[in-house]
Amino acid sequence: MNVYRYEQNPLITPEDVKPYHDGFRVIGAFNAGVARCGDETILLLRVAEQPISSDPDVVRAPVLNPSSGQVEIRELNRNDERYDFSDPRVVRDVATNEGFAFLTSISYIRAARSKDGRRFTIDDAPLVYPSDPSECFGIEDPRCTRIGDRHYLYYSAVSTVGIGVNMVSTEDFASFERHGMIFCPDNKDVVLFPEKIGGKYYALHRPTTRSIGKPEIWIAESDNLNQWGRHRHLMGSRPGMWDSGRIGAGAVPVKTEYGWLELYHGADDRHRYCMGAVLLDLEDPSKILARSGRPVLEPEADYEKQGFFGDVVFSCGAILVDDVLKVYYGCADTSMAGAEIRLRDIMDNLIWK
Amino acid sequence: MNVYRYEQNPLITPEDVKPYHDGFRVIGAFNAGVARCGDETILLLRVAEQPISSDPDVVRAPVLNPSSGQVEIRELNRNDERYDFSDPRVVRDVATNEGFAFLTSISYIRAARSKDGRRFTIDDAPLVYPSDPSECFGIEDPRCTRIGDRHYLYYSAVSTVGIGVNMVSTEDFASFERHGMIFCPDNKDVVLFPEKIGGKYYALHRPTTRSIGKPEIWIAESDNLNQWGRHRHLMGSRPGMWDSGRIGAGAVPVKTEYGWLELYHGADDRHRYCMGAVLLDLEDPSKILARSGRPVLEPEADYEKQGFFGDVVFSCGAILVDDVLKVYYGCADTSMAGAEIRLRDIMDNLIWK
Repeated sequence: MNVYRYEQNPLITPEDVKPYHDGFRVIGAFNAGVARCGDETILLLRVAEQPISSDPDVVRAPVLNPSSGQVEIRELNRNDERYDFSDPRVVRDVATNEGFAFLTSISYIRAARSKDGRRFTIDDAPLVYPSDPSECFGIEDPRCTRIGDRHYLYYSAVSTVGIGVNMVSTEDFASFERHGMIFCPDNKDVVLFPEKIGGKYYALHRPTTRSIGKPEIWIAESDNLNQWGRHRHLMGSRPGMWDSGRIGAGAVPVKTEYGWLELYHGADDRHRYCMGAVLLDLEDPSKILARSGRPVLEPEADYEKQGFFGDVVFSCGAILVDDVLKVYYGCADTSMAGAEIRLRDIMDNLIWK
Repeated sequence: MNVYRYEQNPLITPEDVKPYHDGFRVIGAFNAGVARCGDETILLLRVAEQPISSDPDVVRAPVLNPSSGQVEIRELNRNDERYDFSDPRVVRDVATNEGFAFLTSISYIRAARSKDGRRFTIDDAPLVYPSDPSECFGIEDPRCTRIGDRHYLYYSAVSTVGIGVNMVSTEDFASFERHGMIFCPDNKDVVLFPEKIGGKYYALHRPTTRSIGKPEIWIAESDNLNQWGRHRHLMGSRPGMWDSGRIGAGAVPVKTEYGWLELYHGADDRHRYCMGAVLLDLEDPSKILARSGRPVLEPEADYEKQGFFGDVVFSCGAILVDDVLKVYYGCADTSMAGAEIRLRDIMDNLIWK
């Protein structure tokens, strides 16, 4: 695939972001939602901050106290046999041996703004900050869909009772209305289509199940964006391929003359995250027209291969300008990068049904 | 607690139900939804049928082929080390060591009708039968809520992609309209409140998460019964008590002068299922007024302690007549029983907030 990565990459790194919390460091500025507002491109960064620990035996886990609005620190000892610290992102309960008990960082959403789409100025303060009990471990991986004059911003809400998807909306990226949790746990990787189709709103979503089944892409319908139903399994992982382990929606779907273009992410069993494309019917997005055989974008550059969690490219938003898709994407759970891909090249590499 | 169990208990056993599938036997007629239609009490039985195997080394797993509408049999060898057959209800993948790969029976919904609420006549054919790909392993544990002239019937839809909740509706229990999946996987134990409250419909539901958290009771809102949002965690399990392991809504909520009375089920770490009560605010059902300290009903009778999966009492519906709650409940994943409890007795045993 012919991918033009910006010379300025990575566009934003943790070093560019001043910590919001005293005694914390920024370990990630990544997986940003993308919005156009006026003549600005806004990256809605997921900023992850980690409490600095002076004692190598102590892991410090940040947790929001929703009553006070303050982040409190839980100190855990690396020698505590109840916990598994092998994944740098999470602390696991050894007894349950799955999921997580704590996160080692807390994420929130911060805006970076640009006139040219390459050089960004980062806001001093968070744009959306955890506040609800369902957000006590942070808010992650925002996507943003513009519908009419309103921008809908939705993200993973992580707490002691699971990972769901909460939504807020705004007209000006200054004041926000809260819509509550639109998909209950465990769910993430939600993208809302930017217009009604046949009288209904549509979303892709990604339940993670405990009973049976892999993390895969589903589709749902809504009359009002707040309440969702008619859930259907849309597409699965593919054994032996780059998206064999798990898949989820990535960028907000882009309308093209060929169909709804969805850039999704897929990981193999080694947790290497690539980006692929799926083309959905313009009038019925539950109908798959074509899907990438090989990835559209895979971790190749240093900043994609090395980082907090390496070998990850992960897009939450892309902008189509004429025949060129401007893709913004998180790299290695650390930084943001941008690339341009010709729509024609994506189309030529699809396998049609 | 003063519980009057019917002398006729168990009211319905598997022996009372003629198998619908050739070569199958009925192993359960239990966890029935309850409806009143005309002068009849209708139990919407979950009937579980198991393929008869003549070879003790062969476990036969039934799977619906949604294209043909036929149930096909997958034969598994007990000596196949990839599988764990220790739970009689499911076949587990040893590699994943959680959830299930197949069920050993397939469930559908069959009606039993009664004039006196104790002696039931069972329909010859299924009332609701699996048909959608999301139902290929069967449909389970129906609940039924009457809203106006329409009865809404919803149930666990079990398939290779997880356990969700599908809904159908009817006015006459003869012809049904399908509403699709109203809660996506993993979710079960949904109950719909029988009227709008403050302009919204409400449901209790029970997500099962993989990331963090236990199976517990959530609440959601809807404008139209098909699409649900504003999900909130409502109540949790209680360490050291009878509902320490997992909880879920049971009977459809009953309106009383004191509040919405919900009979829920709770299990401890030994998988002993009891029934408790929670009282929710009449005008805001997300507000808990009171909750049972001790169970309202626990497995004590032989038919509750012994069966396909023993030590289980599990209600999907109850009817309030004057001051008496007529509770129908599944026993040991096998049979149906009925009991009467005075509302006053339930109230007197609640712990008020």
